[in-house]
Amino acid sequence: MEAEIEFIPEGTVTSPEGFQAGSICAGIKEKAGDKLDLGILFSEVPCVAAAVFTTNKIKAAPVVLCQERLQDGSAVAVVVNSGCANACTGEQGLRDAVEMTSLTAEKVGVSPEDVLVASTGVIGEQLPMELIRAGIGQIVLSADGGRSLVKAMMTTDTVPKEVAVRFGDSGFTIGGVVKGSGMIHPDLATMLCFLTTDAAVELDFLRLALRKAVDISFNMVSIDGDTSTNDMVLVMANGLAGNKPISQDSRQAGVFQQALDLVCIYLAKSMARDGEGADKFIEVTVNGARSIAEARQAARTIVGSSLVKTAVYGNDPNWGRIVAAVGRSGVEVVESKIDLYLGDICVLKEGRPLPFDKESAVRVLKESEVSIDLRLNLGIATATAWGCDLTTDYVIINSEYTT
Amino acid sequence: MEAEIEFIPEGTVTSPEGFQAGSICAGIKEKAGDKLDLGILFSEVPCVAAAVFTTNKIKAAPVVLCQERLQDGSAVAVVVNSGCANACTGEQGLRDAVEMTSLTAEKVGVSPEDVLVASTGVIGEQLPMELIRAGIGQIVLSADGGRSLVKAMMTTDTVPKEVAVRFGDSGFTIGGVVKGSGMIHPDLATMLCFLTTDAAVELDFLRLALRKAVDISFNMVSIDGDTSTNDMVLVMANGLAGNKPISQDSRQAGVFQQALDLVCIYLAKSMARDGEGADKFIEVTVNGARSIAEARQAARTIVGSSLVKTAVYGNDPNWGRIVAAVGRSGVEVVESKIDLYLGDICVLKEGRPLPFDKESAVRVLKESEVSIDLRLNLGIATATAWGCDLTTDYVIINSEYTT
Repeated sequence: MEAEIEFIPEGTVTSPEGFQAGSICAGIKEKAGDKLDLGILFSEVPCVAAAVFTTNKIKAAPVVLCQERLQDGSAVAVVVNSGCANACTGEQGLRDAVEMTSLTAEKVGVSPEDVLVASTGVIGEQLPMELIRAGIGQIVLSADGGRSLVKAMMTTDTVPKEVAVRFGDSGFTIGGVVKGSGMIHPDLATMLCFLTTDAAVELDFLRLALRKAVDISFNMVSIDGDTSTNDMVLVMANGLAGNKPISQDSRQAGVFQQALDLVCIYLAKSMARDGEGADKFIEVTVNGARSIAEARQAARTIVGSSLVKTAVYGNDPNWGRIVAAVGRSGVEVVESKIDLYLGDICVLKEGRPLPFDKESAVRVLKESEVSIDLRLNLGIATATAWGCDLTTDYVIINSEYTT
Repeated sequence: MEAEIEFIPEGTVTSPEGFQAGSICAGIKEKAGDKLDLGILFSEVPCVAAAVFTTNKIKAAPVVLCQERLQDGSAVAVVVNSGCANACTGEQGLRDAVEMTSLTAEKVGVSPEDVLVASTGVIGEQLPMELIRAGIGQIVLSADGGRSLVKAMMTTDTVPKEVAVRFGDSGFTIGGVVKGSGMIHPDLATMLCFLTTDAAVELDFLRLALRKAVDISFNMVSIDGDTSTNDMVLVMANGLAGNKPISQDSRQAGVFQQALDLVCIYLAKSMARDGEGADKFIEVTVNGARSIAEARQAARTIVGSSLVKTAVYGNDPNWGRIVAAVGRSGVEVVESKIDLYLGDICVLKEGRPLPFDKESAVRVLKESEVSIDLRLNLGIATATAWGCDLTTDYVIINSEYTT
């Protein structure tokens, strides 16, 4: 089945047929000089749309507005800015979010009800609406504009993160862009992800498929344990491929889910790799848990542990911290059954420390991708989580964010 | 009532009548040169004893042994080492823990069943028993040995943390020592705390009083979100004051609880102040929660947030991170009711950002003690949590722990 899915070289969110995007530097990121900070993603025809939002009880104005507008499961465009999160901004924030969609609607010639909005950046400051009003009109949309849009979403991201795949006998495409990279934690993060497809997809199935894909991708990434007020993963399906809409019972449902999973996992891993201040990418696999939920919980706890993350940063094979993390994760653990591997080096077998060559272990930790493999040997469930090391750069980046 | 309790200048765990302690450098902390690393705390008469242990499912051998030995609620001595946690050490670890208590029992002339043991340091390495066997015999116990004992417990602690208070009409004393200072998180941490009192206390009340005191003190401290395998808070009451044992119905029960609370809060705050790499002490008070449990949860989430901690480190009044943290804490929050103060500066009133003087806010954050006051305005419950900033030094300390 996997063979049916292929990566599109230089693919992005505008790779699927009928999507356009563009962005400009509106001046919202004051200190960032001439960086792109305002963009639009637009479909030439109306889309079936679904989204997953932050679980934070403090929701930014754009999140509140999008939740309302997506109840009907349709959208045509989304406007996005970086540099200001429009969160904790009260009634004014909500009015500004609505105005952003109205201005965009006017520009692209659709109803404001069909336009969504997303913001990322500093919390607690009002949007500089005069800059946004001046900026939206100047955005030039084009069929290869995804590469420009992704840059307008970036905050502390160091590289743009985008992908597209082609799949199925009818040659459907799914594309996506994502921004991280602080406040990243399970159940979403300061992340914005826009996914597009030219496949026609039924709303119920699209919602279900997105939830499944997010659970095994973005919800398995932890950068710093904080969950943002602005997180959003949005998928828009415009149906330009002309297929009979894919539903849960369609022959194409499986490959669609696989392609969506692949795109989401690719973007989630890109996000972890580009975590704030990250030197290294960490992949934690937990095998032999009693249930998927416990495997997920254990993997996320390990990859989120500050002490594990600093040990990886320091190339320190202090594996006791991994065992201590799983011990406090709340999942069932029997010490005398645990096996633990750093890369392919077994350091703990059935709960007993094995003598291991410290130099080889240090070598494993010095790689840019570090894998940790924990086997609970209590059941058959497995899960993988992704993260990055905790570095002095992380602290420096986050201690100077608004000053 | 509070006036009945007074701090004893230079008080420590041996301040209560009939307690002795001592320590030596046994050479367990190899890299630390001549640092004290093995000590004994001893009561001249048998004690009623209670303890609270780590909730980590991976429990170090000393924890397993102490849980068993404290079922009868009595103890006479405790032997403690730093430099090796004796955790994830299998059957050998348990045999070594038992041997440490036997050697100590022989030295002080009691039954091994009355001796407890605690270890702190690296996980996954066996104790250097030849050093411990040679060391225990050389420890000299004295009535002012608490100051020596506390040093033998230290790992990354930079200062010894000890206190004693006198209270009640009969002049009871409670003393205590504690070590932090990484892997510190609610529901205990890599912390060892020994408390002593010359008051006679009934076992049931002692257990209850300790649990209550720990809940509002050590369980409200977060350094880095990791919970250790070795945590223990032990209280020993030797009754040498000659009073009728204090029970829950005693006239003295209230002041005993107050004194125990005071000692535990003092030691918990000392631990937060001395968190690994900490530049600053952070006190977070949450008012107006619907319940004590929610107030506690909110306060602990804020003080534990990496983004809040790095902002404090950088003197950055990026208060949106505080609101985002409470939003993901799981407690009930109504954005339009929240007030937030940094020190005495109100930055958010009924959910609306207030213009504030950034220089004054930076000044508040530059103090060595930073207070954050969040008012949910939903109920009457309140709680306070303590922590420290997240600094580049924390990362450096923890990236080089075993290498």
